[in-house]
Amino acid sequence: MKEYFEQVGKIQYEGPESVNPLAFKYYDPERMVGGKKMKDHLRFAMSYWHTMTGGGMDPFGNPTMERPYNTLEGMELAKARVDGAFELMRKLGIEYFCFHDLDIAPEGDSLKEKLENLDVVVGLIEGKMKETGIKCLWGTTNAFSHPRFLHGASTSPNADVFAFAAAQVKKALEVTHQLGGENYVFWGGREGYETLLNTDTGLEQDNLARFLGMAKDYARKIGFNGQFLIEPKPKEPTKHQYDFDTMTVLGFLRKYGLADDFKMNIEANHATLAGHTFQHELNMSRINGVLGSIDANQGDMLLGWDTDQFPTNIYDAVLCMYEVLKNGGIAPGGLNFDAKVRRGSFEPTDLFISYIVGMDTFAKGLLVAQRLLEDRVLEDFVAERYSSYQEGIGKKILEGATDLEELAAYALEHDKIVNRSGRQEMLEDVVNRYIYKA
Amino acid sequence: MKEYFEQVGKIQYEGPESVNPLAFKYYDPERMVGGKKMKDHLRFAMSYWHTMTGGGMDPFGNPTMERPYNTLEGMELAKARVDGAFELMRKLGIEYFCFHDLDIAPEGDSLKEKLENLDVVVGLIEGKMKETGIKCLWGTTNAFSHPRFLHGASTSPNADVFAFAAAQVKKALEVTHQLGGENYVFWGGREGYETLLNTDTGLEQDNLARFLGMAKDYARKIGFNGQFLIEPKPKEPTKHQYDFDTMTVLGFLRKYGLADDFKMNIEANHATLAGHTFQHELNMSRINGVLGSIDANQGDMLLGWDTDQFPTNIYDAVLCMYEVLKNGGIAPGGLNFDAKVRRGSFEPTDLFISYIVGMDTFAKGLLVAQRLLEDRVLEDFVAERYSSYQEGIGKKILEGATDLEELAAYALEHDKIVNRSGRQEMLEDVVNRYIYKA
Amino acid sequence: MKEYFEQVGKIQYEGPESVNPLAFKYYDPERMVGGKKMKDHLRFAMSYWHTMTGGGMDPFGNPTMERPYNTLEGMELAKARVDGAFELMRKLGIEYFCFHDLDIAPEGDSLKEKLENLDVVVGLIEGKMKETGIKCLWGTTNAFSHPRFLHGASTSPNADVFAFAAAQVKKALEVTHQLGGENYVFWGGREGYETLLNTDTGLEQDNLARFLGMAKDYARKIGFNGQFLIEPKPKEPTKHQYDFDTMTVLGFLRKYGLADDFKMNIEANHATLAGHTFQHELNMSRINGVLGSIDANQGDMLLGWDTDQFPTNIYDAVLCMYEVLKNGGIAPGGLNFDAKVRRGSFEPTDLFISYIVGMDTFAKGLLVAQRLLEDRVLEDFVAERYSSYQEGIGKKILEGATDLEELAAYALEHDKIVNRSGRQEMLEDVVNRYIYKA
Amino acid sequence: MKEYFEQVGKIQYEGPESVNPLAFKYYDPERMVGGKKMKDHLRFAMSYWHTMTGGGMDPFGNPTMERPYNTLEGMELAKARVDGAFELMRKLGIEYFCFHDLDIAPEGDSLKEKLENLDVVVGLIEGKMKETGIKCLWGTTNAFSHPRFLHGASTSPNADVFAFAAAQVKKALEVTHQLGGENYVFWGGREGYETLLNTDTGLEQDNLARFLGMAKDYARKIGFNGQFLIEPKPKEPTKHQYDFDTMTVLGFLRKYGLADDFKMNIEANHATLAGHTFQHELNMSRINGVLGSIDANQGDMLLGWDTDQFPTNIYDAVLCMYEVLKNGGIAPGGLNFDAKVRRGSFEPTDLFISYIVGMDTFAKGLLVAQRLLEDRVLEDFVAERYSSYQEGIGKKILEGATDLEELAAYALEHDKIVNRSGRQEMLEDVVNRYIYKA
Repeated sequence: MKEYFEQVGKIQYEGPESVNPLAFKYYDPERMVGGKKMKDHLRFAMSYWHTMTGGGMDPFGNPTMERPYNTLEGMELAKARVDGAFELMRKLGIEYFCFHDLDIAPEGDSLKEKLENLDVVVGLIEGKMKETGIKCLWGTTNAFSHPRFLHGASTSPNADVFAFAAAQVKKALEVTHQLGGENYVFWGGREGYETLLNTDTGLEQDNLARFLGMAKDYARKIGFNGQFLIEPKPKEPTKHQYDFDTMTVLGFLRKYGLADDFKMNIEANHATLAGHTFQHELNMSRINGVLGSIDANQGDMLLGWDTDQFPTNIYDAVLCMYEVLKNGGIAPGGLNFDAKVRRGSFEPTDLFISYIVGMDTFAKGLLVAQRLLEDRVLEDFVAERYSSYQEGIGKKILEGATDLEELAAYALEHDKIVNRSGRQEMLEDVVNRYIYKA
Repeated sequence: MKEYFEQVGKIQYEGPESVNPLAFKYYDPERMVGGKKMKDHLRFAMSYWHTMTGGGMDPFGNPTMERPYNTLEGMELAKARVDGAFELMRKLGIEYFCFHDLDIAPEGDSLKEKLENLDVVVGLIEGKMKETGIKCLWGTTNAFSHPRFLHGASTSPNADVFAFAAAQVKKALEVTHQLGGENYVFWGGREGYETLLNTDTGLEQDNLARFLGMAKDYARKIGFNGQFLIEPKPKEPTKHQYDFDTMTVLGFLRKYGLADDFKMNIEANHATLAGHTFQHELNMSRINGVLGSIDANQGDMLLGWDTDQFPTNIYDAVLCMYEVLKNGGIAPGGLNFDAKVRRGSFEPTDLFISYIVGMDTFAKGLLVAQRLLEDRVLEDFVAERYSSYQEGIGKKILEGATDLEELAAYALEHDKIVNRSGRQEMLEDVVNRYIYKA
Repeated sequence: MKEYFEQVGKIQYEGPESVNPLAFKYYDPERMVGGKKMKDHLRFAMSYWHTMTGGGMDPFGNPTMERPYNTLEGMELAKARVDGAFELMRKLGIEYFCFHDLDIAPEGDSLKEKLENLDVVVGLIEGKMKETGIKCLWGTTNAFSHPRFLHGASTSPNADVFAFAAAQVKKALEVTHQLGGENYVFWGGREGYETLLNTDTGLEQDNLARFLGMAKDYARKIGFNGQFLIEPKPKEPTKHQYDFDTMTVLGFLRKYGLADDFKMNIEANHATLAGHTFQHELNMSRINGVLGSIDANQGDMLLGWDTDQFPTNIYDAVLCMYEVLKNGGIAPGGLNFDAKVRRGSFEPTDLFISYIVGMDTFAKGLLVAQRLLEDRVLEDFVAERYSSYQEGIGKKILEGATDLEELAAYALEHDKIVNRSGRQEMLEDVVNRYIYKA
Repeated sequence: MKEYFEQVGKIQYEGPESVNPLAFKYYDPERMVGGKKMKDHLRFAMSYWHTMTGGGMDPFGNPTMERPYNTLEGMELAKARVDGAFELMRKLGIEYFCFHDLDIAPEGDSLKEKLENLDVVVGLIEGKMKETGIKCLWGTTNAFSHPRFLHGASTSPNADVFAFAAAQVKKALEVTHQLGGENYVFWGGREGYETLLNTDTGLEQDNLARFLGMAKDYARKIGFNGQFLIEPKPKEPTKHQYDFDTMTVLGFLRKYGLADDFKMNIEANHATLAGHTFQHELNMSRINGVLGSIDANQGDMLLGWDTDQFPTNIYDAVLCMYEVLKNGGIAPGGLNFDAKVRRGSFEPTDLFISYIVGMDTFAKGLLVAQRLLEDRVLEDFVAERYSSYQEGIGKKILEGATDLEELAAYALEHDKIVNRSGRQEMLEDVVNRYIYKA
């Protein structure tokens, strides 16, 4: 173990050309699992923001991250980060990345300069993509960090802010299209409210719907055929974000006739902040046909904010991949590590280690989930559990061929009901045993 | 103050014939507020379950409540409770009640006996209603306490349980109709899951929708024209209840084409368990046109379960009535005290005091909210805040008369954005000042 | 897997004489681990309350558990449960049990009858203990379920209740002593408050200290030399329980000079309700020399009440056993399953399965923790991390041989500080790898 | 109301010389309440960090605050802030301030420069204090923001960091003493852990105790006779902070013999993050004789992080002042607004409004609490509730003049126990009525 981590510990920007295969215990990109390469199941992506631009700040502390480009600024910094990003992905064997416009190019002094900056860096990235074969999983815009967005973007009470956000999204759609992005993500940054005392929630939600509709229309017009994703999050930065969780977003989309055009980008840590398990959110998306992509991180269940930790919990990874496999895979989405190294893990090496750890956790999760499904351990239990709906009165219920009167008459004749145990404890142990042996 | 509470302390079942008007400080049923009687704004209702059948048990303790009918059993107990309920309402001046079938009549040894028991007690209640003029706000069924419902009712994996629940709802609809109930409530007792490992959420939610559809059809068939209500609750008793919150329910109803037939019964303590304020849930219902009725209680924000306390928090009462007034009132719904006296408040007198306290809190809340609206303090602030949508580019946005390209062009010309403060602290103080003076 | 669980599924009260050894994957009582038998590391105990008397009630539902003695009442029921308890322990190979007085004998109509009932059942239990070799890990009293304790026991505002609780503890100490109990536990049932508006916390805490002092004196007087344990719990049933967590209890004990006489009984689910991890509470107890015994269950991190689930989370089990091994073992305490089967796991078989699952989880946890410690993976990392305190200024700090002035002078010369990464992600992966391979 | 807020809205740095007395509704510094001036009851203090240096950043957004000194840097900025701070306090009539070293002077490039910077600004502040009569409530050091403290300060695994923190505290003590500070506060910034996997909690807590001991010794040596305060906080920035809450800190202090030298600085928002009410923490401090000072803000009960909002909740203010009055006042501590304006309240005017709102809320709270105490409404209820301890067996219990045997004998004779209602609902209403009328 020590030897192994010494080896891993050497990996960094200035280190050897590629991560020693020994660093991974489970992740082997070319290994076939259930008829598909491991890398095609997992479609790992690097998150530009946490990985390249995050410095380790927190509300009580300054940046800590030691990075080779720390001394640079402005466009020089932006360019150096492109090099760093592709070096990191190449060494780790990650084939996708995702980004906000503001992650890759500086704000500038005007909207015009902002857009020009973007064009320069996007050109560089395009070159690197051709060189390495690395692809763009998705793009998005940052319409929440700048002070102009302090009351929201498309839900701002200020129409000029709505327009500015529209300009950003227009450009971000173009840029994502130019880079061959397979998806475009909407994360509702500050689309929500701080207090109901000053908020017209009805107008704001109508505007959010209008904004999404316009974005969709423009994207299709310029030929972008990728998937649109909405990323639910319940709170933080605003007290209440409109895209609270999957079912909330579906309630919203269905109201405005947008339900056929948007799928979900589920984030583990956002699920738990909404009071749900990660699997719950994936499951709700799957049964509604809107499981689009995944932000794979983990929160701390005892802390009330987004900790965005690299995923190491094997239970979450197994149950996530279980839902993904039942979904027929996650493509054209992927597994994006929306995770940041801990503030105390400030050495470049920690960045490599953390990706390795996260990728390996999900690779193991895939193997366990695949065996659970192959053996139909849970599947058969569930099928048997609901078998009363396969015949008699149950079948009529499923077929919509009965009514309250018939059911009541039936119940009068069948009022001594026999249930069967749900066997929760046994099933939890089954998962444990598959984890230990997979 | 002491004198006053001595007076209040005498009120109980065996006490004077009516609650001394002095007991209320703000609630005066006939007082006109904004063109309507106070009692017609508030439409208070007694909850039969907490008030008449709850004994003060908790997971660690036995019943504590001292009630005059404690020594009775079975139908004798059920009959005595009818007397008690109407005496309590009469003395307090409450004009509505609501109930589960099981609250008013015992389970019996068979479904047949259960239905017969109901008929007997419903007859008694009808008599009392005629005698007193007290009305039925809503009825419902208890499809969660009996062991047969341990895996749910309409979402049970056992079709016989689905049928049994259907029989119960059929009868509860009939009985509610017979009593002139103005609403019928669906609370998803155990409609949810304990673990995803053994649950087919897709089939269960489809069945829930089928069940609601059948119930609606039967009710209309027998001539029940009241309002159908769904009561959101996020968890407890199950780990996850399908009717998590308003937006979740709307997402569900819109999927199955049920959105025009069901409104919400919002409970304060359920809102907070879902991570929302009480006002948030009322507001989401209001802007979606589904604010149907209210369970007025309060939880303890530091405890993670349903404490169902009598409401004493004036902030919640003001902001609730603010939403109600903006909704044009709550009728045909009402304000039901889904609240129970604390386990340590076990004397009959506490029951009277608690209702007085709860009613008075909402009466004060109504007065404050009415003045806030009359003075347009928040209204004008909000109107001004969103005024940029009344002209120019903002107006085009609201009218759907623009697109991303026009907005982007506009933004390039207007990229120096000026925002205004949201004034949260000032607005919170405004509410305080109105509370102190109303 | 299916075959295996079919086998397990047959185990129940009426089933084969002993749990098939195949049922356990990791737990082998006689296996040597780190120089000690597995069973002596783990010292598993059955909890009489959840296992024998709990019926599956919850705040919204009636009992569901199918048990062979369900039709009995009073002393007949108490006697049948003794048989059931010892049959269950024998079949599972559990060598300890623990109990409240009220678990084993009915309340009766007077205190006198209560005490007499106890004597009868304790006699029966003594016989069974001799017959089977099963031992008593600890006893306690239930001073929270009866209505007389609605405002607390030793912290009741009613001195008669204090006296009644004293009588119960006196008897429970005698009975525990008679049965050779190795520990006596104080769980502060309702020792806390519901609202500060009616509570004299100072007087109540003084009384709690007086009560503990008297109990200790009496126990020593009758020759009981076992360990005294306090079981921290933050809330539920009361809004605030005085024994919130380990550090709170230590703050209390140290104030009243009781810190040398009481250790902690740490419960996993109580730790998380207090906002801590299970390991945190074990660790705080260990470094303060008061880790006495363990209630091994698990909660649901998304639910706000005591779910008391059978433990299946391998992370918790590993880190628990890691603290236990660093503590030099848990004796004379043990690992008590303060866990109840899920309400939907109502068949007798589920009870057996759940104990098997819980025992196996901790057996696996022991194996992983033992290997982690043997390999010194975490130990060496930590030692290296704090190595600056082994020499120079660090050594002087530890030895108390320096002061602010010397340190400030030192700092002026050494203000370019070099830290090292905390490597959290790597260490989490190390634990994963040991889990997979142990 | 509108007129009033227009008036208030004009108050800012460039505005009129003093806040129009009309701005306050309740706060009148010279008004006598219970024999003492209102300002002497409340001892309001400005927090330098949130008020002068906080810019409105959050984890997802850049600074938003519009301040007259926004264009300055380094020492120029520090000097301009001194002017701004004293102008703000003078206009608002605030007589105290509190600060971290880093709030008032920039870090510099070396420890030496840092100390020199401090001396310059402290000189300026001294001048302003003489000029205005404004006093220093307390000083402290910031040993958590700089990257060197990423693993803690006195609990860092790096002895050089311990020394650096010691140098900072030494200087901060000197500076506080120089400015006549009446208290010195220890807030455990990052004194805690991120993960137990890499942490030696025993060594870290020993070091924390050593550090406090050295600080105390040095302070006394230089003649500082002020009060030492520890500020409990449960989490954030670290996963677990050692000073979790009052009882945890007391457990710690009593272990190391430090309990006589340190009192508590209770923060409302820290209380709730620990799972307690604000009043609970004040109460625990009061009954243990360690209520030292107060950070008066409020959190959002539905958000899991420190929101540090200006206090507007009247319930919290009343119950806080109730504890303060029962404590015989808060001096030499005070009421420090550890609160920041909302990110969207970015105009200078909001800063003035927020202080006015917070001060007025506490002034009203004082008036209500004073009347509650004068009328002995709660006092008499509580006295009567515990009256059984004033005679007979209760008296013997309080006097320590009985034992388990006598109590058991007593209980056998008195086993039909009569309790009285705790009247929680009535008492909550009493508080409401006093709020409305005070």
